[in-house]
Amino acid sequence: MSQQKQTHPDSNIYPHATGLAKATVEAHREPAPLKLYAGWFCPFVQRVWVILEEKRIPYQYIEVNPYHKPESLMKLNPRGLVPTLEYDNKPLYESTVVQEFLEDAYPDHTPHLFPKDPYEKARMKIWIDYVTSRIIPSWFRFLQYQPATAGDHADEGLKKLRDEFLGHLREWTKEMDKEGPFFAGKEPSLADFTIAPWVVRSWVFDHFKGGSGIPKEGEAGDDEIWKRWRKYVDALENRKSVKETTSDTEHFLPLYQRYAANTAQSEIAKSIRSGRGVV
Amino acid sequence: MSQQKQTHPDSNIYPHATGLAKATVEAHREPAPLKLYAGWFCPFVQRVWVILEEKRIPYQYIEVNPYHKPESLMKLNPRGLVPTLEYDNKPLYESTVVQEFLEDAYPDHTPHLFPKDPYEKARMKIWIDYVTSRIIPSWFRFLQYQPATAGDHADEGLKKLRDEFLGHLREWTKEMDKEGPFFAGKEPSLADFTIAPWVVRSWVFDHFKGGSGIPKEGEAGDDEIWKRWRKYVDALENRKSVKETTSDTEHFLPLYQRYAANTAQSEIAKSIRSGRGVV
Repeated sequence: MSQQKQTHPDSNIYPHATGLAKATVEAHREPAPLKLYAGWFCPFVQRVWVILEEKRIPYQYIEVNPYHKPESLMKLNPRGLVPTLEYDNKPLYESTVVQEFLEDAYPDHTPHLFPKDPYEKARMKIWIDYVTSRIIPSWFRFLQYQPATAGDHADEGLKKLRDEFLGHLREWTKEMDKEGPFFAGKEPSLADFTIAPWVVRSWVFDHFKGGSGIPKEGEAGDDEIWKRWRKYVDALENRKSVKETTSDTEHFLPLYQRYAANTAQSEIAKSIRSGRGVV
Repeated sequence: MSQQKQTHPDSNIYPHATGLAKATVEAHREPAPLKLYAGWFCPFVQRVWVILEEKRIPYQYIEVNPYHKPESLMKLNPRGLVPTLEYDNKPLYESTVVQEFLEDAYPDHTPHLFPKDPYEKARMKIWIDYVTSRIIPSWFRFLQYQPATAGDHADEGLKKLRDEFLGHLREWTKEMDKEGPFFAGKEPSLADFTIAPWVVRSWVFDHFKGGSGIPKEGEAGDDEIWKRWRKYVDALENRKSVKETTSDTEHFLPLYQRYAANTAQSEIAKSIRSGRGVV
């Protein structure tokens, strides 16, 4: 069994956070009642991690190699998922549920994740759902697609998935506050923390798929929507909590190489391969 | 165009609510600022409708034939989805978002949809997500499956999907309050209102698929979990808000006949057919 685990194609993931994320992990090594079982590379983990950082909630960071899961996690959550949050010796998981939980359980910690107005709060939830049900599956389908001829970035199927991805980003961008820079205006909110992990990983399309197709300033196809999007990306990439939970690109490369070759064996990779979405 | 719409295979849906639901619709014909664009037969609509009834929130019910959508709806929500809620002349949709919105926007109306404790609230959200991401897709896959020989209820593929469905129900039932009758105890909450529409439609498996496979009292396979499940079904079926938003079975029959033959053309039917879930 242990032999089998060691030869799993995804099992040689770099063992710990690097870059700015390394210091964040080191600052949260001490045992604490609130524990985050995490993988430094996992975008679903980062959704929760940035909120712990933003709200300055005391927590202990526990790195989990998904192919060598610690017994403490398996006892807490037999599905062994990351992120799993341990709170009062009890497990919580599903990244968006945990995000909202942190708002409810630490009501005095800012920034607040939702607009106060119930209508605007609900509207934000519709667009958060759009991230999970449309943008993320489209992100992975684009990355995992295999053209008929390896490396053919002009492949029709690839083009179709790139256009689908860009279409989803445009729909989402139209819903943003006009000035920004964040989704709902000057201050970041849950919408931003929910999409940010995939935005800061979108260099994978330049590296593996011949470009994301998002026009640069002044390039063909550039317009007000893409201007607004670039302003948004800039704001997310420079947000302290996002930077300080992001590791060095070089250690992401072998991991996303397997997604780009469609050989990754994570739950999300398999779900996308089978035609399903984020489940 | 209009000719084309009339010949759509799903376009001959019975035009309005019947049975106990008919009186509920008639009690909500008068114009009101809060409007529910609805289809009497749609389980996603019923999720929202039962909460309006439970909380006694004033609303106007507007029946929408999904193949002849009124202009007022298309102006409000170009995707023309039901349920769409009109609130202060603005649209809200996505059934679970609308459910939570009604709690936030009408905070003095009971029953409250969530436990007060943040941990228990988050735990309930995990299991609500399980309904949408696991139970409902499984419900439709089971119903839409076509055995190699028409009408063969012992077909291996059908058996596999039936077992998957039953497995999901058992997982969910294990998470319930032991006494009940509702998910979280004596009082109903959002978990119950989220799953109820599919529970009260589960006669479709007896009618079209040779039975749901849920053992009756004392039958082979009966145990504590199925006892608890039957107590639950009984509580949901007899809840006033559920009964008074459910139409006569005879008018559901032609509609679910098309699901059972896998020829339905609704968004959910097509999504399930393509291998995806609830999107």
